[in-house]
Amino acid sequence: MDFSNRIASLKPSAIREIFKVLGDKSIISFAGGNPDPATFPAKEMGDIAGELFRTRPEDALQYSITEGYPPLRKQLSERMKIKFGIGREFDETIIVTGGQQGLDLTCKVLCNEGDVVICEEPSFIGALNCFRATGANLAGIEMEPDGMNIEKLEHVLKTEKRAKMIYIIPTFQNPMGITTSEKKREQIYFLAKKYGVIILEDNPYGELRFAGEDIPTLKSRDENGIVIYCSSFSKILSPGMRMGYVCAPKPIIEKMVVAKQVNDVHTNIFFQMTVSEYLSRENIDLHIEENRKIYKEKAGRMLSKMDETFPEDVTYTRPEGGLFIWCDLGHGINTNEFSVKLLQKKVAVVPGSAFLCNENAVSSAIRLNYSMPSYDQIDLGISKIAELIKEEIGR
Amino acid sequence: MDFSNRIASLKPSAIREIFKVLGDKSIISFAGGNPDPATFPAKEMGDIAGELFRTRPEDALQYSITEGYPPLRKQLSERMKIKFGIGREFDETIIVTGGQQGLDLTCKVLCNEGDVVICEEPSFIGALNCFRATGANLAGIEMEPDGMNIEKLEHVLKTEKRAKMIYIIPTFQNPMGITTSEKKREQIYFLAKKYGVIILEDNPYGELRFAGEDIPTLKSRDENGIVIYCSSFSKILSPGMRMGYVCAPKPIIEKMVVAKQVNDVHTNIFFQMTVSEYLSRENIDLHIEENRKIYKEKAGRMLSKMDETFPEDVTYTRPEGGLFIWCDLGHGINTNEFSVKLLQKKVAVVPGSAFLCNENAVSSAIRLNYSMPSYDQIDLGISKIAELIKEEIGR
Repeated sequence: MDFSNRIASLKPSAIREIFKVLGDKSIISFAGGNPDPATFPAKEMGDIAGELFRTRPEDALQYSITEGYPPLRKQLSERMKIKFGIGREFDETIIVTGGQQGLDLTCKVLCNEGDVVICEEPSFIGALNCFRATGANLAGIEMEPDGMNIEKLEHVLKTEKRAKMIYIIPTFQNPMGITTSEKKREQIYFLAKKYGVIILEDNPYGELRFAGEDIPTLKSRDENGIVIYCSSFSKILSPGMRMGYVCAPKPIIEKMVVAKQVNDVHTNIFFQMTVSEYLSRENIDLHIEENRKIYKEKAGRMLSKMDETFPEDVTYTRPEGGLFIWCDLGHGINTNEFSVKLLQKKVAVVPGSAFLCNENAVSSAIRLNYSMPSYDQIDLGISKIAELIKEEIGR
Repeated sequence: MDFSNRIASLKPSAIREIFKVLGDKSIISFAGGNPDPATFPAKEMGDIAGELFRTRPEDALQYSITEGYPPLRKQLSERMKIKFGIGREFDETIIVTGGQQGLDLTCKVLCNEGDVVICEEPSFIGALNCFRATGANLAGIEMEPDGMNIEKLEHVLKTEKRAKMIYIIPTFQNPMGITTSEKKREQIYFLAKKYGVIILEDNPYGELRFAGEDIPTLKSRDENGIVIYCSSFSKILSPGMRMGYVCAPKPIIEKMVVAKQVNDVHTNIFFQMTVSEYLSRENIDLHIEENRKIYKEKAGRMLSKMDETFPEDVTYTRPEGGLFIWCDLGHGINTNEFSVKLLQKKVAVVPGSAFLCNENAVSSAIRLNYSMPSYDQIDLGISKIAELIKEEIGR
């Protein structure tokens, strides 16, 4: 079978092999990015859904428009404006089938084969693969504790003629859990403007802050219409329903509508209406506040267990929100191999290599998710990781 | 703003302009492809959904796997096998976000820019635009009352070096409502095999037969693993939930999984579970039988009204199922203009040009949908069309 070049070149990633075994319930998984099911407002959504099935099935089960359910688009525009200063006269909002589709449509609409997408390195594997599948080339910029190395970013912008877009997860980054400082956000925006490239700001975790102070989104400073803002309900209501949204200048949204129409026509309208009703009736901010408490506890638990059991020269981030801790084992450990050994101890993590632009590179880091496992699983899983690290470095 | 070449070249179609005014409730629309809301099993789905929210929210609202909900995939494989003789050892099934995504993923996985997709002409606009957006070129094959002109199909296969795939809606075709004969299905399969191209069989309407005898699907004769079969729940349960499925040889499905993962991760799992439960508890064949009665009545009503009021030399198809009638007004009428005039009379149809491979071609035909309008709307709308035809041809 002859497959298209773009798809044929996508490698089955290390992460996929790990995810295959996760059906096995005896494995403690720190590998996923699943929210804690305790954060799903099932009762409230269920009540609303019941009403929709009874009173509005002719709309809630019928075809709908590609742009998204108009009342929900309006609610989102208002909420983004009030909470994040996002949205100017020239902006528009589209509902997408999960944040992932927002990234995919953006790349499809902007990038020709061979165009370059500049990424934080490491970065979200789902985004990297989606850019690869569109035929774009990736240029990774080394991460520092406060975001991308700005000198390297400018160097790439200056030398890479086909640079088209900067992809950034500025708040509680996946996989590192770190947050780009306000100063660097300003610099990145300035450079994008100077070199005429678009910023794709991916913010699925932004509302999950449990420590420190909010930093304004890049989109909130977008006077020039160069930022595409992508977010999602996956981490605050439910990922299973696949619902996200994109706010960007109207001409970009218009093209995204065309691209979405041939992709899946529209996003599940039943859940669009359910979320719209949820936003009208319930206090989502209060709900999110509760979620933050859960993640604060879980992150805290994982970090103290790591502090307690990991060798001192193993380093890791201390996130102020989001779902992930990035842990560098050092000692020249190749975590592709480490994570396979760890699976034999019934603990799953994602090796750092999965998040790199160069698919053949190796990494001594692992990504740890604390939102999904229970406290007991956190305690036991971290002990086992500590154990294997010590075996590996021979102590 | 510099958009990607593929997306920049997609024209806003005539159909889009018509759909814009359809929010206006005073307009009688024969333009859409919406099923009759009376066919949605809202009560049964609502009961199941209520249970899922109460008893299984941790699965039904959580991330899920890209391939689709395993019990549903199994149910579908069994149903396809029993009802349509579809599925051999080498085949596999994936759940997709509506039939549209099945078409999009197929093209993305198989076609490079410049590859040729052979289409029935006229054909489904959503498919044509999706192939265009992937950078494929279209080759249209003239339709006859029993399907594609086989000589022209072979000529294109023989001369077109980059022919990659034949796209066909063999049963109750959109927009013509006609069905490809068993003989032609055999010939098309034979030619695809001979010239080494893939058949993409799109069958969203296949279960909606209200007259005549079933004809075996192309996929049912697929001993060689060259048919990709795509279908959907949109016309038998609900289009708003966006759920379809594809059955194809495993290596193709594996690539579709990779492509879907970067597109939307997975299809709404809540509705996958709802449909799976529906298939376990309810008798979907009985439900479909009821839907067929509704569409038989509506198609009959529209055809008799047309017989009664249209000039004799206006020709149209008499479908045995599906949702559409194709009507050729003749007399050199350009239906791009005709349909705009008709909108002033508060009736919407889609001009035939929308379904052609050459975007600049014109057509004297229109597509009429009978599933969505009420009987009164059918009577009034058809009278108005008859009126305008007579004005146009000066009788």
